[in-house]
Amino acid sequence: MAGLHVFDVELPEEDFPLDPPGVGRAAEGKRYADAAPWRLETPIPDGVADRVVESCTPGVGPRLVFSALDASVAGDLERAFADAGHVVLSNARNHRMDPVVPLLVPEVNAGHLALLKAQARLRGGKGAIVTNPNCSTVVLTIALRALHDVFGLRRGFLVSLQAISGAGYPGVAALDITDNVVPYIGGEEEKVEMEPRKMLGQLDGGAIRLAGFQLSAHTNRVAVTDGHLVCASLEFERAPSPEAAVEVLRGFQPPAGVRGLPSAPDPAILVSSAPDRPQPRRDRDAGRGMATVIGRVRPDPLFHLKFVVLSHNTIRGAAGGALLNAELLCAQGYLAG
Amino acid sequence: MAGLHVFDVELPEEDFPLDPPGVGRAAEGKRYADAAPWRLETPIPDGVADRVVESCTPGVGPRLVFSALDASVAGDLERAFADAGHVVLSNARNHRMDPVVPLLVPEVNAGHLALLKAQARLRGGKGAIVTNPNCSTVVLTIALRALHDVFGLRRGFLVSLQAISGAGYPGVAALDITDNVVPYIGGEEEKVEMEPRKMLGQLDGGAIRLAGFQLSAHTNRVAVTDGHLVCASLEFERAPSPEAAVEVLRGFQPPAGVRGLPSAPDPAILVSSAPDRPQPRRDRDAGRGMATVIGRVRPDPLFHLKFVVLSHNTIRGAAGGALLNAELLCAQGYLAG
Amino acid sequence: MAGLHVFDVELPEEDFPLDPPGVGRAAEGKRYADAAPWRLETPIPDGVADRVVESCTPGVGPRLVFSALDASVAGDLERAFADAGHVVLSNARNHRMDPVVPLLVPEVNAGHLALLKAQARLRGGKGAIVTNPNCSTVVLTIALRALHDVFGLRRGFLVSLQAISGAGYPGVAALDITDNVVPYIGGEEEKVEMEPRKMLGQLDGGAIRLAGFQLSAHTNRVAVTDGHLVCASLEFERAPSPEAAVEVLRGFQPPAGVRGLPSAPDPAILVSSAPDRPQPRRDRDAGRGMATVIGRVRPDPLFHLKFVVLSHNTIRGAAGGALLNAELLCAQGYLAG
Amino acid sequence: MAGLHVFDVELPEEDFPLDPPGVGRAAEGKRYADAAPWRLETPIPDGVADRVVESCTPGVGPRLVFSALDASVAGDLERAFADAGHVVLSNARNHRMDPVVPLLVPEVNAGHLALLKAQARLRGGKGAIVTNPNCSTVVLTIALRALHDVFGLRRGFLVSLQAISGAGYPGVAALDITDNVVPYIGGEEEKVEMEPRKMLGQLDGGAIRLAGFQLSAHTNRVAVTDGHLVCASLEFERAPSPEAAVEVLRGFQPPAGVRGLPSAPDPAILVSSAPDRPQPRRDRDAGRGMATVIGRVRPDPLFHLKFVVLSHNTIRGAAGGALLNAELLCAQGYLAG
Repeated sequence: MAGLHVFDVELPEEDFPLDPPGVGRAAEGKRYADAAPWRLETPIPDGVADRVVESCTPGVGPRLVFSALDASVAGDLERAFADAGHVVLSNARNHRMDPVVPLLVPEVNAGHLALLKAQARLRGGKGAIVTNPNCSTVVLTIALRALHDVFGLRRGFLVSLQAISGAGYPGVAALDITDNVVPYIGGEEEKVEMEPRKMLGQLDGGAIRLAGFQLSAHTNRVAVTDGHLVCASLEFERAPSPEAAVEVLRGFQPPAGVRGLPSAPDPAILVSSAPDRPQPRRDRDAGRGMATVIGRVRPDPLFHLKFVVLSHNTIRGAAGGALLNAELLCAQGYLAG
Repeated sequence: MAGLHVFDVELPEEDFPLDPPGVGRAAEGKRYADAAPWRLETPIPDGVADRVVESCTPGVGPRLVFSALDASVAGDLERAFADAGHVVLSNARNHRMDPVVPLLVPEVNAGHLALLKAQARLRGGKGAIVTNPNCSTVVLTIALRALHDVFGLRRGFLVSLQAISGAGYPGVAALDITDNVVPYIGGEEEKVEMEPRKMLGQLDGGAIRLAGFQLSAHTNRVAVTDGHLVCASLEFERAPSPEAAVEVLRGFQPPAGVRGLPSAPDPAILVSSAPDRPQPRRDRDAGRGMATVIGRVRPDPLFHLKFVVLSHNTIRGAAGGALLNAELLCAQGYLAG
Repeated sequence: MAGLHVFDVELPEEDFPLDPPGVGRAAEGKRYADAAPWRLETPIPDGVADRVVESCTPGVGPRLVFSALDASVAGDLERAFADAGHVVLSNARNHRMDPVVPLLVPEVNAGHLALLKAQARLRGGKGAIVTNPNCSTVVLTIALRALHDVFGLRRGFLVSLQAISGAGYPGVAALDITDNVVPYIGGEEEKVEMEPRKMLGQLDGGAIRLAGFQLSAHTNRVAVTDGHLVCASLEFERAPSPEAAVEVLRGFQPPAGVRGLPSAPDPAILVSSAPDRPQPRRDRDAGRGMATVIGRVRPDPLFHLKFVVLSHNTIRGAAGGALLNAELLCAQGYLAG
Repeated sequence: MAGLHVFDVELPEEDFPLDPPGVGRAAEGKRYADAAPWRLETPIPDGVADRVVESCTPGVGPRLVFSALDASVAGDLERAFADAGHVVLSNARNHRMDPVVPLLVPEVNAGHLALLKAQARLRGGKGAIVTNPNCSTVVLTIALRALHDVFGLRRGFLVSLQAISGAGYPGVAALDITDNVVPYIGGEEEKVEMEPRKMLGQLDGGAIRLAGFQLSAHTNRVAVTDGHLVCASLEFERAPSPEAAVEVLRGFQPPAGVRGLPSAPDPAILVSSAPDRPQPRRDRDAGRGMATVIGRVRPDPLFHLKFVVLSHNTIRGAAGGALLNAELLCAQGYLAG
């Protein structure tokens, strides 16, 4: 991936503020390792620690730009980069619901990249903004894609049990989560209720028309390092049996051109037949952290289906997802200009 | 509470098997402390450690009997004690759904004790069986009582995040729950969907007619020592605003004769206005572990109300609940005979 | 305890910086509950939430002052209060090793209060400074007091496993401690090696002469909410058997005048004979969080004794310890002036 | 590794009893996946689930045998296999301290394999027994090897913080370790004090003479899934500075023939210069779980050096260590017969 311009690898996918030393002008000219302390279990890749942080100047540097900026500054700065000709892959929430900005998950809506032409028309530029969804909505939406296409989703209840890494670093205080659950994540329920409707929406005259289903979400923080789990109860236009749903999920194929991408998991969806899976610690690394794992598919007494779905929030839901998006953009020629 | 006959204080309220040394004939004649190792944070009360475990013989001992027997043996043995004239307060699941057996939570259905006359008629005896509900249904049902009476519950989605102590000791293996969630508890979802319908049911000709609402449950185990938390989305006959619901919950009064009982919490329901409460570690001890704590009462996009409810599963949901039930039986004269 | 002037109840006993909203001029004039968010499991006491935070002005307010100031400002401010006639009970590290300032644990060195006369002579004032030791040294020093008096401590190895609450709030990031140990606490090992020597030192001509034993410490942070545990291996002048050590520990009597104080635990030291105690969650609340719990007293292959000692770091090691110190000052007439 | 005969992959390296369904005649004839439920995060390797468990019959099957038998049966059964010509690689404690049985860690004492000739002489057979050390002693002994050779170890204090996986499955109850530390592991301190003396002992007339240094150990269980951490304070014949010790540790070379083995980590020892490392979650996977990670090398006030050492207890300390031992045996021709 030559040509990546990295602002910051700490991706606070729930839009929590970054800790100040990691961003802004204070980092310019520093060694990367000094500007952004490395906090992952895997060691920092060779050559990265010593790279020097450049100033954040639109028009300078490679065409593809990854943005992990805080929402407080991402709006204007990402726009400025796009206007200067960059293709900006953003992890911030600012532009996610803009009807001409793709909220991109390749397995779900690779076709939404057609919006980049609408962006060019509207803004007269060569650049564009593409956004990653919130880490907890990715988990769910790949599963919804498969089921919605066949059975027509009408309504759904979603209750998440989210990992602490979703709040960035330092993020959640140990005193708040040890021997505890926090049944609240600021702004999260609104995203879970809305973002899937955009991701599964239809292209319509150069913009996205939201899908018509309705969702209700409860979001909880639990004492898990990585892996967001969602309990889902869904109602459809055409009621599926659990067996039919499992068959559809197991047979799910991403759009052409997605499956062979370097970071694309294969299969995209794993369905467990164990009675007590998926579990965050045991399943989050499936497909190198990029797969969606589903289990406990069973009838729901009120709606049609109940199940549990899991994915890795800092890989699939953040950095890995951004990388897959970049691979799709590259493969489809959007980075050639 | 003179006259208690204690089989075992380890109450595995989710019907997990007890560890073998704690039960059965092997314990007879032993010191209590040797037969049932004490595992609570509070020290063993004076005089209890040295009491000698007696044989489990119907007809011998006090009229009131607490049963924490494993479900594999509770059915017949509790019946035998009742037939021999004892009033059996059971924590096992065996008789919970019997239409003439009260599934007793004093704040919810003290009036169901009228079934004891029906039991006497049916079995011709002086004894009776009264059951404690499952620890995760108690949490919810006190809240439902308040709301159902005023707004008429129609349907509800319930997702629990349950503490490890709910599985008894040794119960959950640390390797299964550390940095993890287990989205499955055997037999639990069925109880959560059914027991509230009995607890809120109507007395009808000497039996309980189940309440007509429908529930759908997902149950999860999380890394919390004590305190079961439930995320609820509810639909009613008469749609309440969140404010109206809070007012009803805050104003809830248990039936006459319950409020002054020694173990009865006052108030029975606490409503938090904090955005992120209740939380297990911070709220489970409210009302000495006997209160129900509710928070985040807000509109639901699909049904009418969303909220979070919590109580202490080994106090309110097990031993403390059994004690309160005994106090009610005593106050109402059922132990006099 | 009328007359208390409370700066801040969050006691960061390891000298971590306080979060800014809780301190300084920004808090003046605010309701207490707004200036210092309440984070304990027990509810805020009646009447405290609505009290108004006053300015931090030496000479104003009651004679007794509790200081939980951050070390960055405690040095000068506490001195100014003492010079203005207040008796300052400090939890900060700044004055702890001053030879005329008592490092007070009533059970250990109530007699060190005689230093207050030396302070008065030296500074010409009516006020004085008295300090609380670091939370992890309190744990150990009460045990050392008992043993040192009888057997003469010569050398000791001490390895602590410390709770997250020791770092204040927000303190330790959940991502740093979940499924993890951090074998480092800044500045802590130096305090554990030095403070007990002052606490067990001799009054000598108006100052404390450090005790002559030598200590070596390793300090670790573990995923425990409250309760600091220390593994100790000790060498003495007169080698005790484990049985003799246990007898001395069990027979330990605090100095006259300490035992009856309202917050003084009785007994001060509990010795467990269980093979696997003390444990933080199960033993930290002994003596309402004020007792020292010791177990596993056994021979050491290199020195003489090995044992494990535990106490509650935010009660005994911070606020509760400060309160007991105040009670001693009051009982001995130091607050009368 | 064709020709492996696997009794059971659950290696309870602290000699805790295996759960009954996993061992013994009850497993014969079953599919492997049914006889021994798979509990690792990585999926069961292709072809393993369907293999059929054979009877445990000495003389049948491959020459090399891995034994993860429980100590209650390992003594006789492993002896019977050795007498029948097998080379038995045992993880049980039974034969570890036998003076003619190598307690093998290739980096530490590959030369101890010369004992296999002594075994052959003594027992007249072609087979032999080779043992893995206890998981917590491996951690330490590789570090000791490097330092002892240069500086001459005299005495050491060792305090372990051990992971729950060390107790096998189900092993530690979640209720015992959540928000807690258990300062006791049955039989463990004795092993930590003794096994390194054998591993670092000298071959002397066909047996091992224990090394002359003395150790004192405290062992603790903490809420960590994998990774045993040890705080060490060491005294030497020739006092090293921390810098000299780090140089020796960084320059450590395993015996000839070990470095190139497939499972041998390279380097064998990693020394961190971070102030707060090693940490279990962040460092246990170093060298694919086979490396020893050391940090905080600093002067000790009583002895000469303090440091912290970590390794992965179920990889380096159990199955991975056994595999490396097998690779060494194979490379040195001991499996040829």
